[in-house]
Amino acid sequence: MTKKITIAIDAMGGDNSPDKTISGINLFLKKNSANNDFLLNLYGNEKIIKEKLNEYNISSNLIKIIHTESVVSDEETPLTAVKNSKNTSMWNCIKSQIDGDADISLSAGNTGVLLVVSRMILKMMNEVSKPALAGLWPSQSGINVVLDLGANIECNEQNLVDFAELGSALYKALLPNHQPKVSLLNVGSEEIKGTDMLKNTYRKLKNLSNNNNFIFKGYIEGNKIMSGDSNVIVTDGFTGNIALKTAEGTAKFITDNLKKSLSIISLIFSYFSLKKFKNKLDPRKYNGAIFLGLNGPVVKSHGGTDALGFYYSIDLCYKIVKGDLMHQIKNNLSHLSGDQK
Amino acid sequence: MTKKITIAIDAMGGDNSPDKTISGINLFLKKNSANNDFLLNLYGNEKIIKEKLNEYNISSNLIKIIHTESVVSDEETPLTAVKNSKNTSMWNCIKSQIDGDADISLSAGNTGVLLVVSRMILKMMNEVSKPALAGLWPSQSGINVVLDLGANIECNEQNLVDFAELGSALYKALLPNHQPKVSLLNVGSEEIKGTDMLKNTYRKLKNLSNNNNFIFKGYIEGNKIMSGDSNVIVTDGFTGNIALKTAEGTAKFITDNLKKSLSIISLIFSYFSLKKFKNKLDPRKYNGAIFLGLNGPVVKSHGGTDALGFYYSIDLCYKIVKGDLMHQIKNNLSHLSGDQK
Repeated sequence: MTKKITIAIDAMGGDNSPDKTISGINLFLKKNSANNDFLLNLYGNEKIIKEKLNEYNISSNLIKIIHTESVVSDEETPLTAVKNSKNTSMWNCIKSQIDGDADISLSAGNTGVLLVVSRMILKMMNEVSKPALAGLWPSQSGINVVLDLGANIECNEQNLVDFAELGSALYKALLPNHQPKVSLLNVGSEEIKGTDMLKNTYRKLKNLSNNNNFIFKGYIEGNKIMSGDSNVIVTDGFTGNIALKTAEGTAKFITDNLKKSLSIISLIFSYFSLKKFKNKLDPRKYNGAIFLGLNGPVVKSHGGTDALGFYYSIDLCYKIVKGDLMHQIKNNLSHLSGDQK
Repeated sequence: MTKKITIAIDAMGGDNSPDKTISGINLFLKKNSANNDFLLNLYGNEKIIKEKLNEYNISSNLIKIIHTESVVSDEETPLTAVKNSKNTSMWNCIKSQIDGDADISLSAGNTGVLLVVSRMILKMMNEVSKPALAGLWPSQSGINVVLDLGANIECNEQNLVDFAELGSALYKALLPNHQPKVSLLNVGSEEIKGTDMLKNTYRKLKNLSNNNNFIFKGYIEGNKIMSGDSNVIVTDGFTGNIALKTAEGTAKFITDNLKKSLSIISLIFSYFSLKKFKNKLDPRKYNGAIFLGLNGPVVKSHGGTDALGFYYSIDLCYKIVKGDLMHQIKNNLSHLSGDQK
């Protein structure tokens, strides 16, 4: 590949930015010091960004700053954003894809605003009925793609079929040598379970199941999301959001209680093993939700993450472009004719 | 209270029954050896139950066996159950409430069949639009009631309002000195979030919020279910089932990985503290889903639980009757006029 992977980064979005974003970029540059197949375009206040780059001793020809005066405020809602967010760091970061200046956009700013602005600027792909927000979950066999995580709180069967195709394409981009195995989240694994909409989606996904795009594994229950038998979990945005956040809350509850239960002695004697455990399940490793179905990929970093979490979201962008997500999506969607859907 | 608390137990339902059920009863009798305010009526094959009682050296005048020839088979579905389950141990266990022989029924048998049979025999309360399956979740401040966990996969606002009243009544029965604080599960905590149905439910619950029945705390996101700020979490059966099972799967994933991460040395040095931790989060402690909204309470034990888990479900039945759940429910529902709903 001679063309460089260009990642447009909203340097100002999220808590403690641009300190967090620049510190995350610093980590990314260090870990990729052997590669020079990428460029990072930073959108935001040039003066502040330059100060931060100096603070972290970053002087890299792989970085370019594109000055923007304004920033999307925390108080902005998706409704007001359309009017107020033009020429913010987030807006210009996304717009750069349309201008051919970037392959992917990354922001830790307000999720609702990012979805609205991305959709307005990049527009939906013709083949897609609704775009979706996909996330990465740890599983017993590695990593899962779960979608939708909240972009669409009400979905029909065509939306879910699209999500299966989009999620499988993302999985193939991130793990080129693995077969996407799609499951549909439901309250039981038997074919008769669930709403009529889910039953119709089941039938359609069964018809679409093939080795090229994905294998459809049927329904999956919440307790099997992380079992590793499926790696693309499809659901509507309401259910996906509740499932994701319930998993987060449960993980926090357990680790908080674990800390309280361990005595000083056992903390000392288990220090390294517990560190390894914590490291393995570190949510920052899975930071970065991917907005799929637009004419360009957008990654949303958690607003409250830190430098390490932001590093992982840059790394995710890098992998997504390297795995040629947009090509994977077009390939996956191309076999969907109106009849099949 | 001069009248004894009478618990009707389906001794045959669930995996490894009646061994599990009788062994659980044994635990219950031992822990309550100082009390004689209860009776346990066991439904099932008298010969097999008697053998098991002998095996566990149980000879108590607090136990009565009511012989039933047949058992609900594992293959039974809710659709076929209506025809086939008459006079099974489960059926007669529930029917005993109608005959005035028991205050509550407990079974570890097939959930779908139990819901159908319970509803058919006990009938819905006049004031309730749909019955719900409620579960107990650990939280930072003690215990939560979460409902519906899967009895109704599609709900309207009146169903959710009923669930709030039913769940609060259960909370008051179990924790008489605590105030039920109801939250509505949603994808955000702001008032504008969610479906129209949820927004309408929000308004109705806000109007019903008062110190006698429950305080309405607004929307809650999945990651806050266990935070302890609310103690009655209301949602439809589809979302509740996914949330419950996702929490179960996450807890399993974390504890499995914790085990793998700990070396033998740290396992030895952390033995007692880890045991304490495991004990605190033991899902068997929360075993027992409560079917609410019928003219009598029914508790469903997890089919795969063991003797300790079954013990906890008997204990739950005991507490529910002691806290006079049916009276709490009637009190809570009495203030709901057609207009208010």
